[in-house]
Amino acid sequence: MPRRSLPLSEVYRLLEPGPVVLLTTARNGRFNIMTQSWHTMLEFTPPLVACVVSNRNYTFNTLKKTRECVINIPTVDLARKVVACGNSSGRDVDKFEAFKLTPVAAARVRAPLIAECYANLECKVVDTRAVNKYCLFVLEVVKAWVDPARKRPRTIHHQGRGVFMVAGTTRRLRSKMP
Amino acid sequence: MPRRSLPLSEVYRLLEPGPVVLLTTARNGRFNIMTQSWHTMLEFTPPLVACVVSNRNYTFNTLKKTRECVINIPTVDLARKVVACGNSSGRDVDKFEAFKLTPVAAARVRAPLIAECYANLECKVVDTRAVNKYCLFVLEVVKAWVDPARKRPRTIHHQGRGVFMVAGTTRRLRSKMP
Repeated sequence: MPRRSLPLSEVYRLLEPGPVVLLTTARNGRFNIMTQSWHTMLEFTPPLVACVVSNRNYTFNTLKKTRECVINIPTVDLARKVVACGNSSGRDVDKFEAFKLTPVAAARVRAPLIAECYANLECKVVDTRAVNKYCLFVLEVVKAWVDPARKRPRTIHHQGRGVFMVAGTTRRLRSKMP
Repeated sequence: MPRRSLPLSEVYRLLEPGPVVLLTTARNGRFNIMTQSWHTMLEFTPPLVACVVSNRNYTFNTLKKTRECVINIPTVDLARKVVACGNSSGRDVDKFEAFKLTPVAAARVRAPLIAECYANLECKVVDTRAVNKYCLFVLEVVKAWVDPARKRPRTIHHQGRGVFMVAGTTRRLRSKMP
């Protein structure tokens, strides 16, 4: 897939609509994937993202230790794999292998991009003060990639218990907001 | 509109998909509305929500002082009013009057519900430690309301610069996750 570097000032446009994401990490040369929906933009520039990773998740300790991850944004064609990643643990499974996803080297972090995802945000952990109380990590996006061919990516949005809303049409309204 | 009380354990199903919301506040008997997209669930029970309110917004000081608000979730039929609320300030405008929205008394907070919104979450500010650095408020949802007649609310999801994705179809997949 041809990947285009996305200006960091545009990152909020990908995360603000609330898509389910796949968080990838690397530890001791092993890659892992975690399905995640609890995230929000915190700042435009540099792009900061607040992201909840439960301490019951295998990714939790990896993120604390390596302080790096990639936020990969899947579309509806990957929905089954997204659920499969959410229903298994990196303790037991190599998810890239088990679910036939392709790791691609990132530019700024050791965690891999997922080739099948239409956008990938390379992140560094920049603040862990809310981790003990809320498992909330503050991430800075240091490099962003997007597939320029996918103009209307049909992202998925979790409504609980395996129900996903699929991104529908878009409307454009005159707005002064970014 | 007939409103049904929603169990607090179900609140995450409304916010996790990332809808644009309208934050209402009350101060000295005056109501205000702020358009908002930077929020995430933090905890299921009690439902905690992390919510960014910039210190450039009129709502910021009100929220710090009153420690109460309502998260109202609009659907696409309200899109123009949502943008109008985002493009004006409570310093200058009574938004309920200007945009013909109807305040309804809440049960647990002084901030009003917006009658036209399909769901309303009454919130108390429970943690302000991340406010100075990130303008991030931690809210606890203390009462939740939903319109039982709206089975497939077409929420809107901001993609920046006045472009909104409208909630499309839903897919159900077998999942072990909540």
